[in-house]
Amino acid sequence: MSVLGAGTVGSQVIRLLGERAEDFAQRSGARLVITGIGDRKSASEQPPFIDPALVTPDLESLVDGVDIVIELLGGIEPARGLVLRAMANGASVVTANKALLATHGPELFEAAARAGVDLYYEAAVAGAVPVVYALRESLAGDTVTRVLGIVNGTTNFILDEMATRGLSFADALADAQRLGYAEADPTADVDGLDAAAKAALLASLAFHTRVGITDVSVEGIRHVTQADIAQAAADGFALKLLAVCDRVGDDGVSVRVHPTLVPLAHPLATIHGPFNAVVVEAEAAGRLMFYGRGAGGAPAASAVLGDVVAAAAHRVHGGNAPRESAYAALRVLGPDDVRTAQSVRLRVADEVGVLAAVAGVYARNGVSIESVRQVPSDEDATITIVSHIARAGDLRRTVAELRETPVVREVVAVTAVEAG
Amino acid sequence: MSVLGAGTVGSQVIRLLGERAEDFAQRSGARLVITGIGDRKSASEQPPFIDPALVTPDLESLVDGVDIVIELLGGIEPARGLVLRAMANGASVVTANKALLATHGPELFEAAARAGVDLYYEAAVAGAVPVVYALRESLAGDTVTRVLGIVNGTTNFILDEMATRGLSFADALADAQRLGYAEADPTADVDGLDAAAKAALLASLAFHTRVGITDVSVEGIRHVTQADIAQAAADGFALKLLAVCDRVGDDGVSVRVHPTLVPLAHPLATIHGPFNAVVVEAEAAGRLMFYGRGAGGAPAASAVLGDVVAAAAHRVHGGNAPRESAYAALRVLGPDDVRTAQSVRLRVADEVGVLAAVAGVYARNGVSIESVRQVPSDEDATITIVSHIARAGDLRRTVAELRETPVVREVVAVTAVEAG
Repeated sequence: MSVLGAGTVGSQVIRLLGERAEDFAQRSGARLVITGIGDRKSASEQPPFIDPALVTPDLESLVDGVDIVIELLGGIEPARGLVLRAMANGASVVTANKALLATHGPELFEAAARAGVDLYYEAAVAGAVPVVYALRESLAGDTVTRVLGIVNGTTNFILDEMATRGLSFADALADAQRLGYAEADPTADVDGLDAAAKAALLASLAFHTRVGITDVSVEGIRHVTQADIAQAAADGFALKLLAVCDRVGDDGVSVRVHPTLVPLAHPLATIHGPFNAVVVEAEAAGRLMFYGRGAGGAPAASAVLGDVVAAAAHRVHGGNAPRESAYAALRVLGPDDVRTAQSVRLRVADEVGVLAAVAGVYARNGVSIESVRQVPSDEDATITIVSHIARAGDLRRTVAELRETPVVREVVAVTAVEAG
Repeated sequence: MSVLGAGTVGSQVIRLLGERAEDFAQRSGARLVITGIGDRKSASEQPPFIDPALVTPDLESLVDGVDIVIELLGGIEPARGLVLRAMANGASVVTANKALLATHGPELFEAAARAGVDLYYEAAVAGAVPVVYALRESLAGDTVTRVLGIVNGTTNFILDEMATRGLSFADALADAQRLGYAEADPTADVDGLDAAAKAALLASLAFHTRVGITDVSVEGIRHVTQADIAQAAADGFALKLLAVCDRVGDDGVSVRVHPTLVPLAHPLATIHGPFNAVVVEAEAAGRLMFYGRGAGGAPAASAVLGDVVAAAAHRVHGGNAPRESAYAALRVLGPDDVRTAQSVRLRVADEVGVLAAVAGVYARNGVSIESVRQVPSDEDATITIVSHIARAGDLRRTVAELRETPVVREVVAVTAVEAG
């Protein structure tokens, strides 16, 4: 067994494999021996539980002649090439690489099937929270209609800091970076790309359909202001970055990531700090929720090692992980066709006929209104309109037309709403 | 494939297998065909989606020559004999029978291993909530230190009705019976036996140790009064029936079911109605929580069918479910050795020296006090003492001695406390 990448997660994987060797032997049926560790840090820079003799920067040398390869490099290359070569050489692969899977999943799953090896990736979504297992195995006898969740701890921490401590986005981001919850370059987190990769994986599993990261409609949290959060709270909502995967009609799938107004009574509204939570709705099971630490070396290592035990047990006792299941091949809706409810806050002229004009815009674009509420304001009037669930394209055109409507002074905020 | 028992769960299993035949074929790799349904109701009393030609009261005839037997009879016999015979005949078994597994688990797991077949039981604990999967597979690479949960929806519904609507135990029970949440004979639920069977299964999985139902220290909710619940709320607690499985020291396991004061900020305090939730604490993963419907035909059917897909896939593609893992063989602590914190409410004489007398009782029995609080009272004085975690035997002796202490007029209530 070799480990590619001895960073935050990899070093915890190596530590636990050493400390709990007896448990792993009992649970998998074989002693799990690390034969090589691929890392750019020199042996002397490694923590004491890493055997310097095993460390090499030559990753290629670690994917030949091993039973299991644990890929924790992240990114597309060289991870993709190494994983493909490892599987072609007969190794099962355990990875935490959501970007790789959400970009090259079909190629990798086909390679695993061809080689007759396992490809496991529990740690790629929501850290230690076993939602990949749940969707792939526990719910294999059910029909999932919806998956929605907080799958990026960094952005949840930032939004939570803004809500509970009144910080600006910039200050909350700086806090997250100081505490190690956000990277120096926070793009993947705050622009929603990390969550989008996870949404693609969740939707693929839930709907037995190939969904890649480019299929996901994405909006990050960079533009969210303290005023947006305060207004959300005043309106009875928490503002969360959600990944939302919906079955639409008989043959469609809507997959999106965006800041969302979540009613305070909704279970996802109560998820604080860097935690993750995923709600799954299925026809027979009803609503399930999974909650836990979505990031950090030890929680991700827990998920990786659960997969390692399963892959090792298959080596010893026979059998394989469930293969990719993409038979349903549902239609993945494009950005204009995904569905959501939406809240629009407008500063409008304080005069007769404003509501009629605004309602007319909604009607012309085929968007049905759920509620209209006047928000106290110093000058002009401010109204908040919440739509029913509608096509994103129709919502987009509605907002564009509102901007051109004379009585509308300003479109203050446009935010998706989760109904409950 | 045959289905033993076409009651609430069995009829849903049969309905879904029919409606979703194409999905099951795609996901398991084989068409899943029901060849017999064992039920005492005559064919004409069955719902329209049950083929009358398949129904027979002759259960014995259904366990020979089939690939998979779904056992939904409940109770020990004839379920035990039929399951053993099915496995000896080469059938994999999927069951929801917590009482059978918590009583005869080792015999059944050994029979499954001997026959080389699968024995699955996700539906036996917490309905559609995949906590068996999580403990057996997802957390196989981690060290679980604690499992605590609300695993009986009936008692959670009753306690919730008492808390939110101010009902007595008897009225809340009558409500639960009227709504179908409680049986005509509610003994298994309200006396904690159903929860104890589930606690035994959870502890066995979590700690890789055989824990049977007779190993579980059990106290039900029959004696809980409206005053207990109101006092708990006033003190900042919800009163919940919890199953609590703790790793104690290097080699011990404490498994118990009892009404427990749960701080209102604890995630389990917010679980309402007939829902189930299980918190798992593991060394690397940290705290995970799983939440969903713990009872009802459809949710249990979802769990059963997830197991059926796995068992069928093993028939087609090879491989087996993970076997019983009992290698750790930890010591299961007896009723006096299990550990808990405890709240004791006393009516005492309103005189000098009372606290010293009471504290002396605790000290003599080796129980450390976390807090003492005076509760407003009309006559005499009422105090609430919360202990630190201690041996149940020491707590029991402490309470016995308090009853004999002259300044103590009455031991009003004794309840376990969950620290957080």
